[in-house]
Amino acid sequence: MSTPSRLLLVNGPNLNMLGSREPEVYGHDTLADIERVVAEVAASASYEVRAVQSNHEGVLIDAVHAARDDCAGIVINPGAFTHTSIALRDALLAAALPVVEVHLSNVHRREPFRHHSYVSDIAEVVVVGAGIDGYGFAVQQLVRVLG
Amino acid sequence: MSTPSRLLLVNGPNLNMLGSREPEVYGHDTLADIERVVAEVAASASYEVRAVQSNHEGVLIDAVHAARDDCAGIVINPGAFTHTSIALRDALLAAALPVVEVHLSNVHRREPFRHHSYVSDIAEVVVVGAGIDGYGFAVQQLVRVLG
Amino acid sequence: MSTPSRLLLVNGPNLNMLGSREPEVYGHDTLADIERVVAEVAASASYEVRAVQSNHEGVLIDAVHAARDDCAGIVINPGAFTHTSIALRDALLAAALPVVEVHLSNVHRREPFRHHSYVSDIAEVVVVGAGIDGYGFAVQQLVRVLG
Amino acid sequence: MSTPSRLLLVNGPNLNMLGSREPEVYGHDTLADIERVVAEVAASASYEVRAVQSNHEGVLIDAVHAARDDCAGIVINPGAFTHTSIALRDALLAAALPVVEVHLSNVHRREPFRHHSYVSDIAEVVVVGAGIDGYGFAVQQLVRVLG
Amino acid sequence: MSTPSRLLLVNGPNLNMLGSREPEVYGHDTLADIERVVAEVAASASYEVRAVQSNHEGVLIDAVHAARDDCAGIVINPGAFTHTSIALRDALLAAALPVVEVHLSNVHRREPFRHHSYVSDIAEVVVVGAGIDGYGFAVQQLVRVLG
Amino acid sequence: MSTPSRLLLVNGPNLNMLGSREPEVYGHDTLADIERVVAEVAASASYEVRAVQSNHEGVLIDAVHAARDDCAGIVINPGAFTHTSIALRDALLAAALPVVEVHLSNVHRREPFRHHSYVSDIAEVVVVGAGIDGYGFAVQQLVRVLG
Amino acid sequence: MSTPSRLLLVNGPNLNMLGSREPEVYGHDTLADIERVVAEVAASASYEVRAVQSNHEGVLIDAVHAARDDCAGIVINPGAFTHTSIALRDALLAAALPVVEVHLSNVHRREPFRHHSYVSDIAEVVVVGAGIDGYGFAVQQLVRVLG
Amino acid sequence: MSTPSRLLLVNGPNLNMLGSREPEVYGHDTLADIERVVAEVAASASYEVRAVQSNHEGVLIDAVHAARDDCAGIVINPGAFTHTSIALRDALLAAALPVVEVHLSNVHRREPFRHHSYVSDIAEVVVVGAGIDGYGFAVQQLVRVLG
Amino acid sequence: MSTPSRLLLVNGPNLNMLGSREPEVYGHDTLADIERVVAEVAASASYEVRAVQSNHEGVLIDAVHAARDDCAGIVINPGAFTHTSIALRDALLAAALPVVEVHLSNVHRREPFRHHSYVSDIAEVVVVGAGIDGYGFAVQQLVRVLG
Amino acid sequence: MSTPSRLLLVNGPNLNMLGSREPEVYGHDTLADIERVVAEVAASASYEVRAVQSNHEGVLIDAVHAARDDCAGIVINPGAFTHTSIALRDALLAAALPVVEVHLSNVHRREPFRHHSYVSDIAEVVVVGAGIDGYGFAVQQLVRVLG
Amino acid sequence: MSTPSRLLLVNGPNLNMLGSREPEVYGHDTLADIERVVAEVAASASYEVRAVQSNHEGVLIDAVHAARDDCAGIVINPGAFTHTSIALRDALLAAALPVVEVHLSNVHRREPFRHHSYVSDIAEVVVVGAGIDGYGFAVQQLVRVLG
Amino acid sequence: MSTPSRLLLVNGPNLNMLGSREPEVYGHDTLADIERVVAEVAASASYEVRAVQSNHEGVLIDAVHAARDDCAGIVINPGAFTHTSIALRDALLAAALPVVEVHLSNVHRREPFRHHSYVSDIAEVVVVGAGIDGYGFAVQQLVRVLG
Repeated sequence: MSTPSRLLLVNGPNLNMLGSREPEVYGHDTLADIERVVAEVAASASYEVRAVQSNHEGVLIDAVHAARDDCAGIVINPGAFTHTSIALRDALLAAALPVVEVHLSNVHRREPFRHHSYVSDIAEVVVVGAGIDGYGFAVQQLVRVLG
Repeated sequence: MSTPSRLLLVNGPNLNMLGSREPEVYGHDTLADIERVVAEVAASASYEVRAVQSNHEGVLIDAVHAARDDCAGIVINPGAFTHTSIALRDALLAAALPVVEVHLSNVHRREPFRHHSYVSDIAEVVVVGAGIDGYGFAVQQLVRVLG
Repeated sequence: MSTPSRLLLVNGPNLNMLGSREPEVYGHDTLADIERVVAEVAASASYEVRAVQSNHEGVLIDAVHAARDDCAGIVINPGAFTHTSIALRDALLAAALPVVEVHLSNVHRREPFRHHSYVSDIAEVVVVGAGIDGYGFAVQQLVRVLG
Repeated sequence: MSTPSRLLLVNGPNLNMLGSREPEVYGHDTLADIERVVAEVAASASYEVRAVQSNHEGVLIDAVHAARDDCAGIVINPGAFTHTSIALRDALLAAALPVVEVHLSNVHRREPFRHHSYVSDIAEVVVVGAGIDGYGFAVQQLVRVLG
Repeated sequence: MSTPSRLLLVNGPNLNMLGSREPEVYGHDTLADIERVVAEVAASASYEVRAVQSNHEGVLIDAVHAARDDCAGIVINPGAFTHTSIALRDALLAAALPVVEVHLSNVHRREPFRHHSYVSDIAEVVVVGAGIDGYGFAVQQLVRVLG
Repeated sequence: MSTPSRLLLVNGPNLNMLGSREPEVYGHDTLADIERVVAEVAASASYEVRAVQSNHEGVLIDAVHAARDDCAGIVINPGAFTHTSIALRDALLAAALPVVEVHLSNVHRREPFRHHSYVSDIAEVVVVGAGIDGYGFAVQQLVRVLG
Repeated sequence: MSTPSRLLLVNGPNLNMLGSREPEVYGHDTLADIERVVAEVAASASYEVRAVQSNHEGVLIDAVHAARDDCAGIVINPGAFTHTSIALRDALLAAALPVVEVHLSNVHRREPFRHHSYVSDIAEVVVVGAGIDGYGFAVQQLVRVLG
Repeated sequence: MSTPSRLLLVNGPNLNMLGSREPEVYGHDTLADIERVVAEVAASASYEVRAVQSNHEGVLIDAVHAARDDCAGIVINPGAFTHTSIALRDALLAAALPVVEVHLSNVHRREPFRHHSYVSDIAEVVVVGAGIDGYGFAVQQLVRVLG
Repeated sequence: MSTPSRLLLVNGPNLNMLGSREPEVYGHDTLADIERVVAEVAASASYEVRAVQSNHEGVLIDAVHAARDDCAGIVINPGAFTHTSIALRDALLAAALPVVEVHLSNVHRREPFRHHSYVSDIAEVVVVGAGIDGYGFAVQQLVRVLG
Repeated sequence: MSTPSRLLLVNGPNLNMLGSREPEVYGHDTLADIERVVAEVAASASYEVRAVQSNHEGVLIDAVHAARDDCAGIVINPGAFTHTSIALRDALLAAALPVVEVHLSNVHRREPFRHHSYVSDIAEVVVVGAGIDGYGFAVQQLVRVLG
Repeated sequence: MSTPSRLLLVNGPNLNMLGSREPEVYGHDTLADIERVVAEVAASASYEVRAVQSNHEGVLIDAVHAARDDCAGIVINPGAFTHTSIALRDALLAAALPVVEVHLSNVHRREPFRHHSYVSDIAEVVVVGAGIDGYGFAVQQLVRVLG
Repeated sequence: MSTPSRLLLVNGPNLNMLGSREPEVYGHDTLADIERVVAEVAASASYEVRAVQSNHEGVLIDAVHAARDDCAGIVINPGAFTHTSIALRDALLAAALPVVEVHLSNVHRREPFRHHSYVSDIAEVVVVGAGIDGYGFAVQQLVRVLG
């Protein structure tokens, strides 16, 4: 089977609110901006992108499962599920694809309950605080890992 | 833009079972009773109420997001999500509306894992143990805050 | 013995300073305002009120003991004793009367040492952050419990 | 009302991936295998089985609520929700049916965050590490409890 | 200076309620019963007793200070101050007299916050759960220590 | 060397009291009942059983050591040693035989100090709360593992 | 069946060394002295005493089991097993006899690992630091409880 | 309103015992010595001093409240209340005057429960271990802060 | 004063060993490789780079202090000092320049004592696990912040 | 009384399995090898050795007690009792002889529950990870201490 | 040997930045100001001062060692090493000279990791929050201790 | 490449003070004595020794790095860095040589912060409390490991 030339971009809960939600924390870029940047960076490495955002943990898990068949890797900003969802972690383990984790804001400056991630130790690379640029870099790293 | 004259009432998981579920803990009032009381108290202050109950965290988050556009404030009984859902907390922060938190039973008398709330520190007012009356008072307080 | 038609209102340390003490935290209502509101709400349910405020834990305990004989229930804002006084908790248990706990400010937004209450798990109802209105609601709830 | 002769089988997130997901941890049996075994064992005790699997917590909660009306008991492998979902625990309490908890793998050999279960203390019986056989035994135990 | 022939008996907060307060926990003996028993046992060893009970921590501290001059030892049931009052502990250390600690009920069966005592490690002997007999034994032990 | 056709059944401290000891917790079956069931189930798979019960940790360790030479696997209910005996754990590791752990009652419903097991992470399968049936299932599982 | 007129006296590990072992901690009385005092006090209430001391946990458990049939209550100084033996605790629960716990020295003055007792919350009375007198008092209390 | 030219000196529980209480810990200076030194140092900066010492927390709180009207700042040695009295902390916050905290002995050398202070983070300056000199320095610092 | 056009690159202890030290953890790039990449990326944004690596915490602190005068920002991989050096954190705060933190390997996969960073909450951006690419991205981000 | 010229060698539970038990952890030397080496090293310093190994804690305690009368010091590898047996610790204290603690394997590399020893702080010397050589060195050290 | 008439003044990492570093936290005095004040106060008591400041822990340790021979006492502001350097603590213990600890700012108002000091319990006196005056007072106290 | 015939001896901070520093803790041997003993024991196995002692962590790290090229193994007493230096641990890992850890005194008898070592789990052998003899034994063990 040839390696798929598609990447999955997963954005977790509340990321649909970007641009309007707490801009002093999350900046002014919108989800559409993020998805466009990710598609562009991926395209330059000959990957297309399937993008999913949901406030429903189950939708994200289903999307990760589906990626197993037709994606080569996953860029994920799990949002608040970073800190609470073992189910999403297990889905990533089940998909058995390389993962890069991104956070728009610097989670280390925020509440203590945002300091632990259920994804970081199963990710290849973690980028926090770089805003939309972090997504572009995440795609580049994923491409590098996919070699 | 004129301030909306609508309030959002959010009831979390298992609150659809009220009346039949563990009445020695939660009393005999039903969800319909609660929604009626809230509507009545709100009407007396010239607010209408949009009521949502779901066992799906994503549905509640979507509803909170939608409230940003056409509601003035939120009365919420997050049920079990009180103790586990950072995503719901983030949705409330993203909506940027005043919040009053209600619990039917006295959570302080129950298991230790029910003693922490991810909502209380971002709520204006918290009422626990007052049964259906707590909802009525929550609406009154929300109206006061909206002043 | 007929049920007493009197309620005890207990305000703990520093609540005598209300109105002048940190108004950004505690608001502008004074202790006299609180006692008046409580008396009015109680009167509407045919209860009179004995009000005590003290910075002396022992005075509060003595008052709670005395209530056993001639009061039907207790509304209490234990102030800082909320977090430190097992003796006051024991007095409330010894009085064996229904208790409603009130806090003017939202204690969940404050220092961690204010997040635990020695009273909440023996109270019927707990109201925080509703200012003087919380006292009125507390009386109503106490009356409801006394049914 | 006659006792229902149906059992609910609940499988939590990622269990749809069985057989392909990390077989060194979870073995080679598929979800279909599990559902078939459960149906066979139940049939031998004259019970039929309604099987639900979902990666959506809300779907599982809804199914548990529905079981209250037409099932006699519940066999559940909550997957990752074992460790995080108080809402699912509350749904089981609300359903007020006997529960047997099953885990395919030996959770005690895995990460510390898998060592606590929000279900075990409300279950009658807990079986871990027995693979698909654990489900069959779970049905037998549920039948015994239903006696 | 001759050794004083007087003992101090200290009873802490809420012990004035004995006999009526939660008899299933504390039994039916009253404070007067306790003081009488202590006086009788002390008299048989040629000691008289000064008894103090107060719900005011400061009153107890003052009494302990005064004992330094005219008492030979102290029997104390600190009640709830057992678990919270470093000031009372310091007073006992300042008095520099032998101390025996008594608790009517078995504190080890009660809430975790009752399991630590600020007095036990500076007492000679600790007796819990023996009711009024514990006080008599405490006097005997104090007399033995004073030997 | 041919594989032995014998299983070791280990029952830890106080299990000799079964039937009379706290039947509301442990049920009415006796140790003899358990040993008979285990022998029957094992016989159906052509295994004989050596059964040991002791209140002496050393006796159990000696028995586990001896099993290394002539048993194929171990079914163990370590009783209270579950939570305290690293020595018994080490003996099981030294014997290097497959282990199935059984508990009659649901330990997760009991005191917190019963929630940790020094055996579970070295066992193949763990069954709790299934009473005497749990032993029969344990033998079946051990036979399956011995395959 | 008539109530037995015998008491069990249990002394745990190292108490055979009394008199010679660390006399500055444990005093100069020997185990024989203790057993004599206990017998005398029991005799004055028409009870005889069976005394057991062992450094073997299993021996103590066996003795407690045996007491179920022919003793009315138990005085126990579990020595170091106080802090480590859940098996001994379970034996006392299985015997279902009233228990009084004694410690020669004031354990609260010693290492932190001696501050927790697995026996205290199932004992009627606990006496620490009273030396051999504590045993005599323990018998008196046991007799009182046996009433 | 002109700034008051008076300072409040607060000494907490047991400090009346100075000179006689544990001189190896607290030294030989008496409370009168301390109050004299404080008055002299304050006088040299044209401040008079109101001195209060009490073993009653309520008395200290009342004194701190009163200082709000006619004192410019507070030197306080809260004694054992340092570690336990949130009420005293709240009184200092309510008075809204600059505070300097003094301890005669080096609390860091003593029991762990003396290592936390409810006053230090709201004080300008903290001096420990300097004996009576620490009070003189505290006054100087308070004068400096009052500038 | 014109903004300096120089960046400081800080590499902490043991990073001089790169290429030979544990390549399965840290990869095959050498420190010289890293410094060359950083210089190239910086040059493309018209910044020059001063690079320092030391196993001496003091040398790193001195270098950070010096940067205050002639550098515009800092890229730092603090190595093991990430987890232990408050002094280095304080130096970064004293320099008052924007900071980007880089780690070659994914620290979240390693020992728990590597999961806390004294730098992350004062950094703008944190990149882990991206090897030498992480340094290039760090420079880009620093340039973006310097905007 | 002349000093005894005998040493006690104590080996705890499972050490009888040496040579066959987990050789990758414990090596290939047998208990007989250890006892021979210890005897030889002791003989070179004119000491004879009494060796005891048991899986029964009580047997070890009895042996330690007996050593008080006719041994000059103790070399002990407490095995798993290192981490759990306060009774054995107390026996060593009661024997009041110098102690050297030995562990064959490096316990610091193993499970966290093996990182605490109830013996180390009462031993003169502790040697871990040196295999059988550690025993020889332990004897030499014991001889040095006995001087 | 006559007592040396020299004091050592030790200032830890980042204190060379005083005056420019975060003046809102540390004030406007410079290190030179501090060293001048210390010299003046010492001179008035006929002591000269050797001053050392370094960002290198080893330099500070070397200086403390050297003081053993020719200094009478040490005034130290360990800066960030306060919270992390056991080596510096050990150096102070090795020097065996009286120590006074100073902090310019009130560390109790800052991050929790600044609340513990490895020096305070081996210092005679601790002064925090008094700025440069704290150094002068520290010298006076050191002189007093040297008496 | 032939295996080097040199060993590195590393002594951490404050060990230069041996002989004069707290002899009741560390004994009367000097650093020179230690280095001489180590050289002698090594020589008897045909190894020479390079000895380094420093109070500067960076110097020790540099020395460990250098050993990678020309030493066969390392004997280290990290002094206080045992408990604080992850950087030194990483240097030892980077050197990839066998390590034996020595402590002169019994660290288990000292402050709790001395009970954890960042070196022990990467060392082959750990010896504590054996004074200078421990170094000799460490060399012997290192030679054995180098085999």
